[in-house]
Amino acid sequence: MPTDRPIVTLMTDFGLRDTYVAQMKGVMTSQRPGVNIVDLTHAIPPQDIVAAAFQLDDAIDAFPPGTIHLVVVDPGVGTNRDILAVRSGGQFFVGPDNGIFSRILRRDQSAIVIAVDQSKFKRKAGSATFHGRDIMAPIAARLATFKREVSEVDLLQLGQPTRPMLLDATADIEPDLFENTEGRVIWCDHFGNLISNIKVGQRSDLPERADVSIGETEEIPVVRCYAETPRGSLLALIGSAGRLEVAVNGGNASERLNVGVGTSITLTCTPTEAADR
Amino acid sequence: MPTDRPIVTLMTDFGLRDTYVAQMKGVMTSQRPGVNIVDLTHAIPPQDIVAAAFQLDDAIDAFPPGTIHLVVVDPGVGTNRDILAVRSGGQFFVGPDNGIFSRILRRDQSAIVIAVDQSKFKRKAGSATFHGRDIMAPIAARLATFKREVSEVDLLQLGQPTRPMLLDATADIEPDLFENTEGRVIWCDHFGNLISNIKVGQRSDLPERADVSIGETEEIPVVRCYAETPRGSLLALIGSAGRLEVAVNGGNASERLNVGVGTSITLTCTPTEAADR
Amino acid sequence: MPTDRPIVTLMTDFGLRDTYVAQMKGVMTSQRPGVNIVDLTHAIPPQDIVAAAFQLDDAIDAFPPGTIHLVVVDPGVGTNRDILAVRSGGQFFVGPDNGIFSRILRRDQSAIVIAVDQSKFKRKAGSATFHGRDIMAPIAARLATFKREVSEVDLLQLGQPTRPMLLDATADIEPDLFENTEGRVIWCDHFGNLISNIKVGQRSDLPERADVSIGETEEIPVVRCYAETPRGSLLALIGSAGRLEVAVNGGNASERLNVGVGTSITLTCTPTEAADR
Repeated sequence: MPTDRPIVTLMTDFGLRDTYVAQMKGVMTSQRPGVNIVDLTHAIPPQDIVAAAFQLDDAIDAFPPGTIHLVVVDPGVGTNRDILAVRSGGQFFVGPDNGIFSRILRRDQSAIVIAVDQSKFKRKAGSATFHGRDIMAPIAARLATFKREVSEVDLLQLGQPTRPMLLDATADIEPDLFENTEGRVIWCDHFGNLISNIKVGQRSDLPERADVSIGETEEIPVVRCYAETPRGSLLALIGSAGRLEVAVNGGNASERLNVGVGTSITLTCTPTEAADR
Repeated sequence: MPTDRPIVTLMTDFGLRDTYVAQMKGVMTSQRPGVNIVDLTHAIPPQDIVAAAFQLDDAIDAFPPGTIHLVVVDPGVGTNRDILAVRSGGQFFVGPDNGIFSRILRRDQSAIVIAVDQSKFKRKAGSATFHGRDIMAPIAARLATFKREVSEVDLLQLGQPTRPMLLDATADIEPDLFENTEGRVIWCDHFGNLISNIKVGQRSDLPERADVSIGETEEIPVVRCYAETPRGSLLALIGSAGRLEVAVNGGNASERLNVGVGTSITLTCTPTEAADR
Repeated sequence: MPTDRPIVTLMTDFGLRDTYVAQMKGVMTSQRPGVNIVDLTHAIPPQDIVAAAFQLDDAIDAFPPGTIHLVVVDPGVGTNRDILAVRSGGQFFVGPDNGIFSRILRRDQSAIVIAVDQSKFKRKAGSATFHGRDIMAPIAARLATFKREVSEVDLLQLGQPTRPMLLDATADIEPDLFENTEGRVIWCDHFGNLISNIKVGQRSDLPERADVSIGETEEIPVVRCYAETPRGSLLALIGSAGRLEVAVNGGNASERLNVGVGTSITLTCTPTEAADR
């Protein structure tokens, strides 16, 4: 069932109080009527590039090839920082060159990364404080006019290839299946689940006996789903993005433990043979 | 003015901080390009099935036949609870079998209720913690490919008929026009209006003299609209879903009275002849 | 790239907790399938008509001709206040006659303003408390069935011309380039930026030396963009709607200064020749 309505997702630190997000949608819809805009989230903490990098990367697999992801977390707006247009994994990305695409670009060495010629896109009467609306939304609208198979030539119409900024803080930690693995909380979700940079995949990738310590709390068992423990129990599991997280069944782990983003978290795996002894 | 863009509404307890809602939209749009997704609300209190049942039922009349309502309030995710697909009143419903559809199913004895064969829909690399994205969104996308007139045969392609879970706490109270009616607050809205399970219909269904007591406050008159009383006055009225509610004109009743969901509320009707004496 | 999908924007004081906004979308989509609905904001403070007037006017330039803006901030719902349909600047507006369109109507003397015949649009079983859903959404849906070039004759089908209510509090202050200009904070955004009714246009419209005082803080320099000052610095600039605002680079000015909407703000311009002496 084909469609000619390209998807543009929006991720910002704008919140939902103001009309800023709507203004970006207005500009894109003016320039590319029929574009299908989906809000990823607008609750990135203000100017938190690392949080944006994680949230973006954990969400994009749910979207089809050809999707354009517009990310506006842009503390350097109005300075001479570049604006990037990226092709990676069949999807497209637009946003400031400040590290928000670090995870995507480190994983995909074949990504095409363009520093966009901003003068080609800047709206008349554009501001010095809202490039999301005045430059980036028009770039996303342009990408949305390309067919699904955008060539490198098409992208080079937008600007010049560049080497993007990469941030170390956006890297994952792989679990050590025989020893302790040290990570940190990178996101606290709406339920108070404490989500870490320890990327596991799924529960069966860990030995049967595995537990977590966080803050002053130790030996939290790693289970498979929330309801596997009694209501009100503290538990750990592998969340829907493959990350180790700490939760309370029917409750709020962040409030219970009084910890949040940045807190250390340790995964301890006990290999099956050791556990059997 | 016909359209081939089926509407899917989303109701969850996910909040708006995370990308969870967006991921569900991405999956549905991948599988059924052009689907028209409308957010009902994502502010159901975490795991509050009763609240979801009321909010869903009070909202669906505004949507056209053929609308698919996807409701993800799912504390049992990852357990063996069923996932339901329901046809009732010309609309469709998808969600876990935990009572969220109690109001719809008690009202409509002819509803078709299917326990979906989840293995037919589960996404590759699906998680044990996010069936909204990994199983239910694909089911909704499938329903959206049917024509408006989905037959029972079509629905039986999804799974087997089942008897759903029903929750008593989702029942309404009918007003007694001659005596006291006892109900409770089931929802506090953005304005602080305290909305009850006493379902009236409209103001003219009650006698001229009717008043309400809630908490320690008595004799709150039941009026027709907010502006009918002086600014700052406590009042009761029949809200836009036909429910008795307590409000403050230009203010916040929940804060004023310091009460919320679960508080008892009593409607006292004085029949016209008694009032005349 | 033409489209037959008219845009309807929604601005309300409904918040995002309830299904009220969704119900309006359901009604419009029922009556005009394919309509493209964009949320402007639902975070107008309850019943705050002045805030709505400013937020609306600052957002509409981002939308294309033919856009229909539906604004529901309606403390007088259920009384005999009119409901307006307005054509101005190639766009359309629907909402209660309480001053929310003051800014648009004062600027455009040639606007067509109709008091809508509500009986033509009221939904069966409509309520006395939710005209946004029961009368205004149907009016917006009707406007969306017109072609982009709606004539005055088309609009007169909806009701009779009227003189709308205008509110003085929605006026802007023009900067005095040689003396002090007194204004006030009209909006505090998600970042804590304090946005004023002093409308400048852009930074270059002011002399090189210009500074701001707000609350007990004086001599805040007016710069061009947030990152032009050290992180954590208090600054003033001309925001994306051309308004003078006070901000903190990487921080929250409202929290830092402990002030909000209504606070006085003074712009002091020093003409270049005076500054040179």
